[in-house]
Amino acid sequence: MKKYSFKNDYSEGCHPAILQALAASNMDQQPGYGDDRYSREAIELIRRQMQFPAGDIHLVSGGTQANLTVIGAMLRPHESVIAANTGHINVHETGAIEATGHKVEVIRSGDGKLYPAQIKAFLGTVDAVHMTKPRMVYISNSTEVGTFYTKGELQALHECCKAHQLWLFMDGARMGSGLCAAGSDLTLPDVARCTDVFYIGGTKNGALFGEAIVICNPLLQEDFKFHLKQRGALLAKGRALGVQFQALFTNDLYFELARYANGLAAVLTAALKEAGYAMLTESTTNQVFPVLPNTIMEQLLQAFEFYPWQKIDDQNTAIRLVTSWATPESAVQAFIEKLKTVTPQ
Amino acid sequence: MKKYSFKNDYSEGCHPAILQALAASNMDQQPGYGDDRYSREAIELIRRQMQFPAGDIHLVSGGTQANLTVIGAMLRPHESVIAANTGHINVHETGAIEATGHKVEVIRSGDGKLYPAQIKAFLGTVDAVHMTKPRMVYISNSTEVGTFYTKGELQALHECCKAHQLWLFMDGARMGSGLCAAGSDLTLPDVARCTDVFYIGGTKNGALFGEAIVICNPLLQEDFKFHLKQRGALLAKGRALGVQFQALFTNDLYFELARYANGLAAVLTAALKEAGYAMLTESTTNQVFPVLPNTIMEQLLQAFEFYPWQKIDDQNTAIRLVTSWATPESAVQAFIEKLKTVTPQ
Amino acid sequence: MKKYSFKNDYSEGCHPAILQALAASNMDQQPGYGDDRYSREAIELIRRQMQFPAGDIHLVSGGTQANLTVIGAMLRPHESVIAANTGHINVHETGAIEATGHKVEVIRSGDGKLYPAQIKAFLGTVDAVHMTKPRMVYISNSTEVGTFYTKGELQALHECCKAHQLWLFMDGARMGSGLCAAGSDLTLPDVARCTDVFYIGGTKNGALFGEAIVICNPLLQEDFKFHLKQRGALLAKGRALGVQFQALFTNDLYFELARYANGLAAVLTAALKEAGYAMLTESTTNQVFPVLPNTIMEQLLQAFEFYPWQKIDDQNTAIRLVTSWATPESAVQAFIEKLKTVTPQ
Amino acid sequence: MKKYSFKNDYSEGCHPAILQALAASNMDQQPGYGDDRYSREAIELIRRQMQFPAGDIHLVSGGTQANLTVIGAMLRPHESVIAANTGHINVHETGAIEATGHKVEVIRSGDGKLYPAQIKAFLGTVDAVHMTKPRMVYISNSTEVGTFYTKGELQALHECCKAHQLWLFMDGARMGSGLCAAGSDLTLPDVARCTDVFYIGGTKNGALFGEAIVICNPLLQEDFKFHLKQRGALLAKGRALGVQFQALFTNDLYFELARYANGLAAVLTAALKEAGYAMLTESTTNQVFPVLPNTIMEQLLQAFEFYPWQKIDDQNTAIRLVTSWATPESAVQAFIEKLKTVTPQ
Repeated sequence: MKKYSFKNDYSEGCHPAILQALAASNMDQQPGYGDDRYSREAIELIRRQMQFPAGDIHLVSGGTQANLTVIGAMLRPHESVIAANTGHINVHETGAIEATGHKVEVIRSGDGKLYPAQIKAFLGTVDAVHMTKPRMVYISNSTEVGTFYTKGELQALHECCKAHQLWLFMDGARMGSGLCAAGSDLTLPDVARCTDVFYIGGTKNGALFGEAIVICNPLLQEDFKFHLKQRGALLAKGRALGVQFQALFTNDLYFELARYANGLAAVLTAALKEAGYAMLTESTTNQVFPVLPNTIMEQLLQAFEFYPWQKIDDQNTAIRLVTSWATPESAVQAFIEKLKTVTPQ
Repeated sequence: MKKYSFKNDYSEGCHPAILQALAASNMDQQPGYGDDRYSREAIELIRRQMQFPAGDIHLVSGGTQANLTVIGAMLRPHESVIAANTGHINVHETGAIEATGHKVEVIRSGDGKLYPAQIKAFLGTVDAVHMTKPRMVYISNSTEVGTFYTKGELQALHECCKAHQLWLFMDGARMGSGLCAAGSDLTLPDVARCTDVFYIGGTKNGALFGEAIVICNPLLQEDFKFHLKQRGALLAKGRALGVQFQALFTNDLYFELARYANGLAAVLTAALKEAGYAMLTESTTNQVFPVLPNTIMEQLLQAFEFYPWQKIDDQNTAIRLVTSWATPESAVQAFIEKLKTVTPQ
Repeated sequence: MKKYSFKNDYSEGCHPAILQALAASNMDQQPGYGDDRYSREAIELIRRQMQFPAGDIHLVSGGTQANLTVIGAMLRPHESVIAANTGHINVHETGAIEATGHKVEVIRSGDGKLYPAQIKAFLGTVDAVHMTKPRMVYISNSTEVGTFYTKGELQALHECCKAHQLWLFMDGARMGSGLCAAGSDLTLPDVARCTDVFYIGGTKNGALFGEAIVICNPLLQEDFKFHLKQRGALLAKGRALGVQFQALFTNDLYFELARYANGLAAVLTAALKEAGYAMLTESTTNQVFPVLPNTIMEQLLQAFEFYPWQKIDDQNTAIRLVTSWATPESAVQAFIEKLKTVTPQ
Repeated sequence: MKKYSFKNDYSEGCHPAILQALAASNMDQQPGYGDDRYSREAIELIRRQMQFPAGDIHLVSGGTQANLTVIGAMLRPHESVIAANTGHINVHETGAIEATGHKVEVIRSGDGKLYPAQIKAFLGTVDAVHMTKPRMVYISNSTEVGTFYTKGELQALHECCKAHQLWLFMDGARMGSGLCAAGSDLTLPDVARCTDVFYIGGTKNGALFGEAIVICNPLLQEDFKFHLKQRGALLAKGRALGVQFQALFTNDLYFELARYANGLAAVLTAALKEAGYAMLTESTTNQVFPVLPNTIMEQLLQAFEFYPWQKIDDQNTAIRLVTSWATPESAVQAFIEKLKTVTPQ
């Protein structure tokens, strides 16, 4: 029998409401390349949700595609983007940003986040003309290690960026999880006001595929669609993206799904802590990173799928458990039951 | 009331069999990034259909994405790709190939096709070191102007390419239409044997999105998946592509849909010729290009949507009519009826 | 004995005044990367000569380097540069512009020049988003076929470019020859006022190597030096460029050398016309293109080196003869003498 | 009066023998783009010196140009180059490597060098497809911090690279200084046998400009000249490079100049150590890095120019002193005299 997988939040297809919307709209003739009514309506829904009517919104297929298109479009050749060492663009995109010609300047981060003091310290080391000109700061929310930005943190970072002529770009592949995390006071309207560009991830929160890029800063909006086409990101049947985001931003579905995923992760966290395990990072999002003795980890891997994340020492490993809109509560309960039965050997 | 559109073959969603397959597979947990069982099974079906078990197959979202990833992966920086002036990569991809660093060397073509004599003549003009080194020939089948390659033509071109160390790449965004065209004796197994790399277009033949890249030449297969990731072409939920191609290559659906579209285009062609209109190109594929007096064109545009394609002279314009798997026969009949009522004014 | 070569204007080293200046300045310690006093003084001399104190000037090693750095720095990724089919960036730079990510959009030209009507016609064919956005016009003066721009022509082109938001970039690899051509009323101050960016070629007019890029439009000046460094165009010993341009722009040497070369070419032209030969283009610059019977060409090749340029028909070929600051008058006389002795066979 | 500068090894022009050779060859007509006899003869001299007749040699203008052309030519788009954090390509080339599309994967290094154990540890962290594929190792000799590779170290690194399918590329901007360092047993023939590609720096060792790229591995030699042209690195008057390297590799001049520079640096080091100062790195090359109290540094800066290199703590700074072929012994003596007079305040 197939083991249940906590490997990631893109193991299943899409939320049933999306399947229904695809079917319902299927034979309606629409213009191509994002000019269809479903995309227009989805964009209108997002604009309303973020209370930012001037936002320029484009729907694309995936996160790496969003990152490379945004960064490639917004930097001049000699400009670079600053990222945390844990940032997705630095570690898991096969050099996609460099393939557009830009260096990713790396700041080491303990919690996956960037703070103004780090940015300022980095800028102090730059030797003009002989080094790239930093022009953008890339952050993720929630981050790759399950942490999130508060409203105050984002505002402070935005102020710092403005003061140093840096665009602030938030990768929101897990935006739902970040905004709905216990302890987060950040909202979508806040994000729109405190970044220059960001995207709202659909793939990891209920969509079959799709990310909504939002360009907040009018200086960055011109001609963006050319870049989408040039990078192969402009789907002929853009409707397939429009229909999905229309469904996700109707009746609060997007945030409902994120809260559900975070809730299940919190149940896992509580059980793990109760069992006496430490957590690698303080996460209230849908990714949690318990540190387990290797013997325990091996026993759990007999019953469930998940990724070992980071070797802690010869005896212990941090693992990653990911929940999503599609995770059944029963799977979480089964994991917790199993946890009670494992023993260090 | 909405006018019926003959503008293109991507105005609707997808064939119902695909919607059903998406729904049926929806909650099955699968690995990401193309390692799911649906993609594996779809690839096996395509391999069998093309009788070429050594073909390396990758599923991506769209045609420009396929073109830029293939060409970018297979050329060294100083190498260029030869294309007809009408080739999609030359005119309608916003410089996507150049954005990967490669020049598109252009040969003027009357019928949208390339022939060995043209290739040889072009090679004769190349001044080594000061010009790019041509290393690939890009062709489309069916072409952007509705024509197609016969088996003999493709074999001859392939021989020419091999003799001059040029990879042969066939853009098959409309592969179904090309192979099923009246007069075509070319088959998918022929294409696999007579090209180095090609792709089978899903988007314009029944899929919601998706193109299947087939790398025939083993010299070009190494590491291709890295390039997909780097270009943002590797979907997290690759299953969405696998499910679609599995449906299309079950029970001959892919070719059935193409034959249907070509058949309706033939009905249009017959009626237009009977009405005395010339055709810009001899097309038996799903795109036809009648030359109409502007007055006639204007009357038809009152009732239907389609693109004016090319100004012929002050009085006449070639228009483009496109049919697809989704075109109802009734729409074709309505167009023909309308044609009988229009009069030069 | 070695045959005299009319192959090009870069067959010798440099004007003796430059050798002397290099020797005189040799042991003076100076800062690197263009911050030396020789570069600063050379730039001041050029600014004065062109009566344009706001010009931003950078010295680089060669023409292709100048072209790729300028175009790569000034275009956004989706933007393209328009050039004549004969333009150096289109034919003889091994795809250097495309290697920076930009498409060269080509207009066919009979005389190597571009005119407003051609630009406007081309812009009329552009399909936004699906095609690149033309943003720059590249011209050469003198052109690759020996022609030149008059003041009126350049003004008209500049007006056209401004009206359509196109930067105007003049490749001046043979700027001296163009400005000093018989019939030219264009001056360096005119060029500075009627282009957005241009360069003054040293390599083909007396320097060992070196081109002076002049950025006239303040909108294009920001951060250019970063691009020089990134493209490998910023010499550690930038003084080697400064010393040369200082010599060339002292006592009118640059233009004196150009006039000398043009003068010798005019002597050749007169003799060729008197001998009854047609010219491929009307050139008063240092490149001339007589059309010769192949039998005559072969006899001349016994005594001199030069390039066959273009096949006219089975019996006739246009050849290219190039003169320079280094061409001795005796070589020109010898050629003319030889011309009198050759006979069609 | 102008202060003497120990800022770098490119403050003066070139060795007098080079000026003489430029003058002597000046009016000799030669083919362009590296096909001249001076370049051919220089290449032959270098081949003989390195006892490696199969080496493919190309002369270019500068180090960043050499690095970006070599790396851009030899990697496929998804491949990356490993470098020490101190490596020139990582810190001081304005993202030139990334501008060719490739990520620089960084290993932290204490002494500016890379060792097999570090390479192997790094390779263990690579997650195929989602990360770049490391395919080249970049090292400098002498390094940016004055250290050098021994024969044993280079052999071990080369073995490691071969075992892991990594090309080994040595940046020899200061090759002379590295090979002639006290304690170095490495020779040019060793370098040719133990790397896949390297270059011999002229700019920092007596040339006006110029680096000789040597491609040792036949697999990497094909078509390299196309890349030179495409990157703007192919000088029309390539003779200017040929003449210089011909002079440098005649009568052992290249190594004589390097030994001279290293010798003066050793005199400085001895005096600094005798005065009780520590050195940041153990350097026997032409760059030395004494750690000085800031009060001492300030007094020295009154009399000489040099760069503060690295802040050690609030009271102390490591400075960089660079000697060259052009440094007079008197300047070194003056510095040592000054050193005796300064006092902590």
